[in-house]
Amino acid sequence: MTYKLSQIAKEIGVVFVGDDIDIDGIHAISEASDREISFIDSGKYISAIPHTKAAAVILQSRYAHLLPPDTIALITDEPYLKLALATKLFAHRASTATDAPTMGGGCDIDKSVSFGMGVTMGERVTIMAGCYVGDGVTIGCDTLLYPNSTIYHHSIIGSGCTIHSGAVIGADGYGFAHTKDGKHIKIYHNGNVRIGDSVEIGANTTVDRATFGSTIISQGTKIDNLVQIGHNCEIGEDCLLVCQTALAGSTKLGDGVSMGGQSGATGHLVIGSHATIASRAGVTKSIVGGRVYGGFPAMEHSRWLKIQAKLSRLLKQK
Amino acid sequence: MTYKLSQIAKEIGVVFVGDDIDIDGIHAISEASDREISFIDSGKYISAIPHTKAAAVILQSRYAHLLPPDTIALITDEPYLKLALATKLFAHRASTATDAPTMGGGCDIDKSVSFGMGVTMGERVTIMAGCYVGDGVTIGCDTLLYPNSTIYHHSIIGSGCTIHSGAVIGADGYGFAHTKDGKHIKIYHNGNVRIGDSVEIGANTTVDRATFGSTIISQGTKIDNLVQIGHNCEIGEDCLLVCQTALAGSTKLGDGVSMGGQSGATGHLVIGSHATIASRAGVTKSIVGGRVYGGFPAMEHSRWLKIQAKLSRLLKQK
Amino acid sequence: MTYKLSQIAKEIGVVFVGDDIDIDGIHAISEASDREISFIDSGKYISAIPHTKAAAVILQSRYAHLLPPDTIALITDEPYLKLALATKLFAHRASTATDAPTMGGGCDIDKSVSFGMGVTMGERVTIMAGCYVGDGVTIGCDTLLYPNSTIYHHSIIGSGCTIHSGAVIGADGYGFAHTKDGKHIKIYHNGNVRIGDSVEIGANTTVDRATFGSTIISQGTKIDNLVQIGHNCEIGEDCLLVCQTALAGSTKLGDGVSMGGQSGATGHLVIGSHATIASRAGVTKSIVGGRVYGGFPAMEHSRWLKIQAKLSRLLKQK
Repeated sequence: MTYKLSQIAKEIGVVFVGDDIDIDGIHAISEASDREISFIDSGKYISAIPHTKAAAVILQSRYAHLLPPDTIALITDEPYLKLALATKLFAHRASTATDAPTMGGGCDIDKSVSFGMGVTMGERVTIMAGCYVGDGVTIGCDTLLYPNSTIYHHSIIGSGCTIHSGAVIGADGYGFAHTKDGKHIKIYHNGNVRIGDSVEIGANTTVDRATFGSTIISQGTKIDNLVQIGHNCEIGEDCLLVCQTALAGSTKLGDGVSMGGQSGATGHLVIGSHATIASRAGVTKSIVGGRVYGGFPAMEHSRWLKIQAKLSRLLKQK
Repeated sequence: MTYKLSQIAKEIGVVFVGDDIDIDGIHAISEASDREISFIDSGKYISAIPHTKAAAVILQSRYAHLLPPDTIALITDEPYLKLALATKLFAHRASTATDAPTMGGGCDIDKSVSFGMGVTMGERVTIMAGCYVGDGVTIGCDTLLYPNSTIYHHSIIGSGCTIHSGAVIGADGYGFAHTKDGKHIKIYHNGNVRIGDSVEIGANTTVDRATFGSTIISQGTKIDNLVQIGHNCEIGEDCLLVCQTALAGSTKLGDGVSMGGQSGATGHLVIGSHATIASRAGVTKSIVGGRVYGGFPAMEHSRWLKIQAKLSRLLKQK
Repeated sequence: MTYKLSQIAKEIGVVFVGDDIDIDGIHAISEASDREISFIDSGKYISAIPHTKAAAVILQSRYAHLLPPDTIALITDEPYLKLALATKLFAHRASTATDAPTMGGGCDIDKSVSFGMGVTMGERVTIMAGCYVGDGVTIGCDTLLYPNSTIYHHSIIGSGCTIHSGAVIGADGYGFAHTKDGKHIKIYHNGNVRIGDSVEIGANTTVDRATFGSTIISQGTKIDNLVQIGHNCEIGEDCLLVCQTALAGSTKLGDGVSMGGQSGATGHLVIGSHATIASRAGVTKSIVGGRVYGGFPAMEHSRWLKIQAKLSRLLKQK
């Protein structure tokens, strides 16, 4: 989709001064191209403003002077709310339109499978009954989708993957802007999900699509049942995520990270490579790799054991 | 369904004395009409007995004298078990019977969608591949069902809603009567689910139907993935429920309540409007609105932080 | 499937000395027949080696002398990895091949239901829209599958069961062997799931198939929504498992066990009959039946309450 910047400004209700230009999308401040708009919602990304390549940025007036000379300011008191309105303009339109997929030899596709427009698949892909494969999805060779799994539009699935029944890849991330009177305005998630080779996704697990860019699960990672992967998470290679684990949005795992059952991590964290997180641990801040963590809030497991021992002694004394 | 009261009494194994009447259903003691039966299982609802409008009430003999003069007593030592047997009589019969839905203009319905009998939909509804829409379901205008979502019979879905893949709306609540020898007898859930306008339901989230009456999700509420809403819960407007949260049966949330990821609440609680419940908090008793809660059992977050600090000091001393 | 032992040895890369024989499968050391191979991965099962009936055992050289005289040793430094490679040889091949099921009278099967090869069903079975019933599945009389539930191959479902929408019965267990460079090699799960009579499985609940043998849910057990049952679990009769509970692999529950919402148990435990486990409790070691447990790590509930009280007094003093 392409809009004139003037049209976007009008739709979201901001004043626009300057030359009108074509806009193809929306992206984060440090990722946006000169045909995209971006936004600044908080002080956190201020340092990125002078370096942005975005054509225009939705932001409060106090940050406008930081923009590069060629970048257009879209001034507002509520940049996140205006962003939400803008994402709607670029949202993929859900539709039942269907077309035959392009596919390699040796595929085994059940007759009940539904394809959106423009699906591309490699060789020897197996897709069992009741699966849905959305618009523009790409699936690599030798991948197997068990019955009733759902792949939303523009997801990219690698080769040799196994997706179990009921898994949902690419549903919208959970993101809303909030109005002053407490209404929640949907941030349309126009990014996608990219899954590497030899990844296994368990039954009824959900992997949300990115707001912009991609939610990434790298090759060799194995995910159990009923796990939630939030939008824009990036999971390294050969990680293990056991059942009912949840990662909130934008958290990044290195390679070889292991998370036990019913564990979790809040959003925007970095979990270093080869970190081991015990069952039920809840990670609330970024942690270095190569160590074992437990508890909630999670701490190094050895420290957690010491605290438990101390506590136990204390309770005996009284 | 309509039964003679004598027939119900015979089926559930209680003695019935009095004029025979037609009975259309079962409801809670304070909600039942004069064509419905009700029950008293514990002392909790005794005060409601004299005010009931029910035609007949299943209860222990010691409570029978509290009934209004026109209400028929169905005396038993095991009222909950007899109730379970009665719910079966009024249970909706699962069937693959299908009929074309009644719908407004501009709908986009995939050819693989299955409809039960008597479905009614507004204008511009989109239902993608593999969805099931049960008997007597109503769906408002502009609502979107992503692939492979399931709406059980008699659910009412508002306008402008988004239901993600794998969501299950209206499955039976988890309720059983227990026999003396430890068997569990199903309480058939003959209520429904009512979802207001502009509600979003995440992927693989489950919202159970009510035992009697309705499980209610009010307008503007946004629910993330893999959340469980128990039978007879009532959720106010503009609430936010993040992934893997669970509400046990009959808990009521006011407006604007926010519950973090992997949090939960036990049954029959009241959570006041604009309460904020931190990730992983477990609410075990009713709480007033407008405050922040954390921990398990959940307490005010400021108190929880103080306790953590005290504990930390204690552990350093030893 | 049947292979020559020489062929298996070649495929998994171990040296084989002795008479070549036909092998039909793989099983645990104490369960394997004389037409099956087995393995020893750790010291835990050493005592079972001299009593095995297996035709051949994958194991380290130091354990080889413990084998019965007729049992062939398949020597390797990495027995679990070799086992993983062997399981692939015996894996059921996912396919969209379909055949009309054999069924009794009075069944009500939606036209959109997909059947694998060789499905057998009793009388009056109801299977609603979008369900998948895999190769070799058996379903007893009067069982009801709600829409979009999935039954993987060779599952055995009893009579009078109710399976709710989105439930996934028989997906692969979460088991991998790990290479020295951190890759995870899939253990193919060639066992199945066996569900007794009158069992109810909630919406979006997952029950994984066994590595070898069966994951068992015994008659009368009722499971709520979004529950995870790991591979090789054995659940007794008339148990209650409330929403979002998780059992890791190979844990055994006696009869009449009750587990509250969001509770869990790690793998290879034994939970005695009529144990009651509170909501959110996390069981980390085997526990005797007939008592009430809470907390994480779970302990007897009365002890947990005492500790909470002591802690509360301690914190008041400081």
